[in-house]
This record gives sequence, C-alpha cells and structure tokens, in this order.
Amino acid sequence: MRMSQLSEVTGVPVPTIKYYVREGLLAPGTRSLPNQASYDESHARRLGLIRALLAQGQLSVAAARRVLDAIDSELSLPEAFEIAQHATSEQLDPASVPEGALDRLDGLLAGWRYLPENPGRIGAARILATLVEVEQRELSAFVTRYAEHALGVAEADLDEVDARPDRASKVATVVIGTVLGDALFAALRRVAQEHVTSLRYGQAEP
Amino acid sequence: MRMSQLSEVTGVPVPTIKYYVREGLLAPGTRSLPNQASYDESHARRLGLIRALLAQGQLSVAAARRVLDAIDSELSLPEAFEIAQHATSEQLDPASVPEGALDRLDGLLAGWRYLPENPGRIGAARILATLVEVEQRELSAFVTRYAEHALGVAEADLDEVDARPDRASKVATVVIGTVLGDALFAALRRVAQEHVTSLRYGQAEP
Repeated sequence: MRMSQLSEVTGVPVPTIKYYVREGLLAPGTRSLPNQASYDESHARRLGLIRALLAQGQLSVAAARRVLDAIDSELSLPEAFEIAQHATSEQLDPASVPEGALDRLDGLLAGWRYLPENPGRIGAARILATLVEVEQRELSAFVTRYAEHALGVAEADLDEVDARPDRASKVATVVIGTVLGDALFAALRRVAQEHVTSLRYGQAEP
Repeated sequence: MRMSQLSEVTGVPVPTIKYYVREGLLAPGTRSLPNQASYDESHARRLGLIRALLAQGQLSVAAARRVLDAIDSELSLPEAFEIAQHATSEQLDPASVPEGALDRLDGLLAGWRYLPENPGRIGAARILATLVEVEQRELSAFVTRYAEHALGVAEADLDEVDARPDRASKVATVVIGTVLGDALFAALRRVAQEHVTSLRYGQAEP
C-alpha cells in the first residue's frame, strides 16, 4: 500500500510517518516506482508499536529508537532486558541516594540476585528514603509486601517471554512488556484501590 | 529559622522556596520582624514532600497543589483517593479506547467494585488493547495475574492507611502512597526482573 493508505489504516498522519522514517524508527517502504514507495502489514504493526512506546510508555524518540534497535538486533534476552530497563528508568547517580538507603533496600531483598547498578535498585532505595523521611515511620514490612508482588509480576513477565516461539519475538515481548507493564500495573492498582476502599469504607457500587 | 537556614537544612535553593510559597505549595513563614519571616520543622518536612511529589512522583506544580490541598483539607478518605488518583493519571476519554476493550477488562476484573469512570479502568483497557494489537496474542491470563498482584499492593496501601492514627495522617498516607507507590513498584519490578532472569537464564551474581 502507499503511504497515504498506511496513514488511513493506522490513523497516524502522513507527516508523522515521514518523521518516524527520518528518525529511523520505521523502515522506509519498498521502492516500487521511481517516485513511489510501498508499505505492508509489517509497517502497520510497527507503527502501532511506535505509538505505544511513545504515547503509553512515554518514551522519548531517542529511547524508543534504542528499544526498537534492541528488537531488531541479535541481542540475548538479558541484554534486551537491560536496554529496556535503562530506556524506562531515570538515570540515577547512586551517590544521590541518602547513605544507608541502598543497604536497607538490599537487606529487604535478601536472596535476590541483581547487580549493584540495576536502575531499579537505585530508584527504589531513593523512594524508600523519601517515604521514610516524609512519613516519619518504619516501612520495612510495607516494602517487603511490594517486593513480593513485584516478584510475582516479574514471573508473569518472564512466563510470557518463555511462551514466545523464537528469539525475535521473545526480545519484542521483553521490551514491550517492560515499557507497557509499568503503565498497566499502575492503572490496575488504581482500580484495585477503589475496590479495596469500597470494601473497607463503603463506596461505589459494583 | 530564616529562609536561608531552611534552604541549608533541606538543600532546596532559596529562589525555589520562594517559588513554592508564591505557588501556594508551602505556607509563608511567620513574620517575626517587619522584614523577616521565620520557618520551622513543619516547613522543612513539607519541602521534602513537595520535592518528592515533583521529582519522584513527576507531578506538575498544579497537580502537586491539588494533592497538597487534599492533605490540608477535611476530605474523607475516598475523596482523597480520588484526588490522588486523578492527579497521577492521564485524563483519558473513554471514547479513545477501542471498542470492546473496556468490556474485556471488566470481564477480567469480575467481582471488583469500581465506578466506570475510574481513571485506572480506562487506562488499563487502553493498554490491554494496545498489547493485544502489538503482540497479536491472547493476554487474559497475563492481565489476570497482574490484577491479582495489583490487588495485593492495594491491600498493602490500605493497611498502611488504616495503621495511621488520625484523619490528617491517613489522608497524607493515601496521597503520598498513591503518588510514590507507582514509582516504588516499577523500580522493584526491575530488580525482580533481573533476579528472575538470572534464575532462569543464568546471569548476575548475588
């Protein structure tokens, strides 16, 4: 199909499609006539993925390109995870985390295997330090419960990856799941909060 | 203490403190001399909270003000939850969600009590539709597992609220927990993904 049809099918405006091609997010169409390129289903699917990463995953164009490059590459799964994690995590300097907070977090996650530079480790330690400061109370039991559920979600993530038939689709699932999983979980947590609030305090009808 | 000391204690620059006072996020100091205001511990704690909402919760100044107003007000808990949820959720038009996705999500969350306009419901339905489109596969079991863990996290959230001694601190915990809980969970999920990847595929040393 031509670019105008691709735009119609996907709902993405032609100038936006041209921008994605220029930025290297979307492969150019196959040249069919000197002045005409032709696009297929794979372009339409890729456009859906680009929109998901940018709009729902809130990635920058540069971060989306890194993530899409990971999907297109011959990376191993742990490498793909690392790229997806870094694309979706603030770059945090471990030195920005209050002293003791990293040790406290590592203590709560005893038995877990991860590298000290895991971006989630530094981010979680910083939030833990903030929560303790702002709330002025002990939060170990609370964080431990969060960690147990984070482990359950990570197992669901990895089961999805394992169920995919080949390396390319496994890597795609790693990347898409890492980026969109945060947003999915946060949204479901809001619905669950209303449900639990309603059970405990009475509110809202089923 | 004077504003310069408040700045030293908290690490927040004086012009930033003045900006927060002007924007109504921080109460002005008590006027001690005609040309001098005095600040106390409560100002320092509030500054910590403001920084947490803006930097780690990634709220806009306007959203942070709504959330802080909720803490200062006489709101009931369900009302405080609603404000915190809306401040941290994209404003989504239900009509922007592909047909059938809301019904599919409601089916997966059968038995939960929530209002149709819950922002998490609309957000989760939209992400579910995107995932199905991009991944081209059935995801009911996956979303159900996410939902079970979201329920567990919401219960941890509400247990924290229940443990607080009075209405004001309960409301503060609702608001702080809703805003920072997303970031905490996302960070822990990244650590858990590395842990589970390492168990299944071998990588990283404890």
